Amino acid sequence: MRATVEVNDADGLSLAYTPGVARVCSAIADEPELVHTYTWKSSVVAVVTDGSAVLGLGDIGPEASLPVMEGKSLLFKQFGGVESVPLALACTEVDDIVETVVRLAPSFGGINLEDIAAPRCFEIERRLRERLDIPVFHDDQHGTAIVVLAALKNAARLTGRGLGELRVVVSGAGASAIAVTKILLTAGIGDIAVGDSKGIIHAGRDGLNPAKAEIAELTNKGGRSGSIESALAGADVFIGLSAGQVPEPAVASMAPDAIVFAMANPTPEIHPDVAHKYARVVATGRSDFPNQINNVLAFPGVFRGALDVRASDITENMKLAAAEALAGLVGDDLAEGYIIPGPFDERVAPAIASAVAEQAGRDGVARV
Amino acid sequence: MRATVEVNDADGLSLAYTPGVARVCSAIADEPELVHTYTWKSSVVAVVTDGSAVLGLGDIGPEASLPVMEGKSLLFKQFGGVESVPLALACTEVDDIVETVVRLAPSFGGINLEDIAAPRCFEIERRLRERLDIPVFHDDQHGTAIVVLAALKNAARLTGRGLGELRVVVSGAGASAIAVTKILLTAGIGDIAVGDSKGIIHAGRDGLNPAKAEIAELTNKGGRSGSIESALAGADVFIGLSAGQVPEPAVASMAPDAIVFAMANPTPEIHPDVAHKYARVVATGRSDFPNQINNVLAFPGVFRGALDVRASDITENMKLAAAEALAGLVGDDLAEGYIIPGPFDERVAPAIASAVAEQAGRDGVARV
Repeated sequence: MRATVEVNDADGLSLAYTPGVARVCSAIADEPELVHTYTWKSSVVAVVTDGSAVLGLGDIGPEASLPVMEGKSLLFKQFGGVESVPLALACTEVDDIVETVVRLAPSFGGINLEDIAAPRCFEIERRLRERLDIPVFHDDQHGTAIVVLAALKNAARLTGRGLGELRVVVSGAGASAIAVTKILLTAGIGDIAVGDSKGIIHAGRDGLNPAKAEIAELTNKGGRSGSIESALAGADVFIGLSAGQVPEPAVASMAPDAIVFAMANPTPEIHPDVAHKYARVVATGRSDFPNQINNVLAFPGVFRGALDVRASDITENMKLAAAEALAGLVGDDLAEGYIIPGPFDERVAPAIASAVAEQAGRDGVARV
Repeated sequence: MRATVEVNDADGLSLAYTPGVARVCSAIADEPELVHTYTWKSSVVAVVTDGSAVLGLGDIGPEASLPVMEGKSLLFKQFGGVESVPLALACTEVDDIVETVVRLAPSFGGINLEDIAAPRCFEIERRLRERLDIPVFHDDQHGTAIVVLAALKNAARLTGRGLGELRVVVSGAGASAIAVTKILLTAGIGDIAVGDSKGIIHAGRDGLNPAKAEIAELTNKGGRSGSIESALAGADVFIGLSAGQVPEPAVASMAPDAIVFAMANPTPEIHPDVAHKYARVVATGRSDFPNQINNVLAFPGVFRGALDVRASDITENMKLAAAEALAGLVGDDLAEGYIIPGPFDERVAPAIASAVAEQAGRDGVARV
């Protein structure tokens, strides 16, 4: 923590603390909006987890998840100039997490949810967005979705296709896979089949949780069932957001100019060198191969932009604008090995922040 | 917020965030105590309020109370080198505040409760101390109590009396007055009468809340009733922790070598110049008179010491040790106008921290 003023004498103490601070408190009590002007609220994001879905480690509890939240806070600061507080909560029930975050909200300008297990993360985010007048953003979902959409836009441009022409297979049905699927649908992707460990999700499958039932309604125009491998035959795009593996023959069965995003970490669903034998564009989640799909490309700029205009929400349009801005930075340098900027590209956060802030204005959620 | 490392390249990113951070998470999951070593937990205090009893302003709500919590965080940092996070909660029920703080506790090394109304502050603190293994300290109570005890020890020394000989009148029965009364009893004060707006608290009075009923049992050996003014006749010490006023004749009726602590802010219960006509030692809460009783003398050092040894609690002995260390700094310079160090005396926080840490070891609550 860093103080923004120094207190060196009795006058300073009287001003920063009692009795001087009472005038600031009274002003906010009279005119609540002044909390944004006179306190840290509008500069600070809470990075909130319950420690239930941490990286590939699963449900390791709040204390053990704290290093990830601290890492996130570091990246918020360094990449977006966003102040944040890592908060790992000792509760896992939806009601408890929602109530706790609602009670914390007066001190913060935004809530970044992190590493909360699906499907409860969906309801937590939905209810918090309803109840709070500050942005609530589950990064595992929307950060990933923004970066994947940006990368896919550029991969489609490179291969001379519109998003509407692409048939996509998504492997995984967790938080990130579902959010990626939804943003791709919103962006106009032609058809998507989503598969989990039991195969392609379709309306006839028993025992779908509400999130997967919704996916069954929204996707799979072709009415496919069966394995992810079988769905890949003739598909244009593979998006891997699971811990599973994809056999080489399945990738070989994809359409010409195939696009493979194998983002499982640390072991991609198929090794990029193998994928490249059949696919034109390959991306992973790893820094040691080209085209790294990394959330750090999105969340610092998204929150920077949202805080800059005191946004009350992060709308779908703001996420689409973030993806568009991120994709646009690649410009004429577009190539098989460069469909997305690298994480240390200093243009990224400002470009996204600016696009998000402008879109917030158009969507009527900006407050300055 | 300030990062403790910089991330400048892909290797740094891999180390500070995924995949490197997973090893730190796994280590803590296997050995929970490592959270103190590998995260910010043991360096950071949550400054928690519900905004229900803010300075002299009362129940102004969480947003309007935030500037006080921020000021507190500033003082924590500047005077004690203690990191802290201002958290103003949007709830006021005891159960809700307790549950919220319990859920937040994994991220923090200590909880400083602030500006929570009496009597609920007592139950909140009691229940949190029971449930948490980190220090919970309601500064309005214990910070004030420590500084008052230190000042009174020196005032007694100056006037050649032991604490056991003093008859004390406390004006006010809020959080700070009750905590001051209790620490003075523990320190061996002879007799105390506590009065609120209805007069002296005694066992026969109707409608006492549980905190006041306890005070009625613990105090008032003389069985007094009636007004605070009447109790002052022949008393040695007046401790004002209310918004009320004390008429000049009441102060004039006190015993020789009287000690008057008139700490109401910004208007002391009796003007120090008037009090000095009858009392030998006069202290206030104000910086523009000698002998300022200011909480900032206590809380930074108390938490610095508690965090330094990863204390699981702040015991009564630790509070007494803090008062003893604070009083001791005055040494041979003791005088009517110097019974307590000034807030910018740089010896204060280290001396208190050291005394608190040592006492934590003796009390078996230190963990390193």
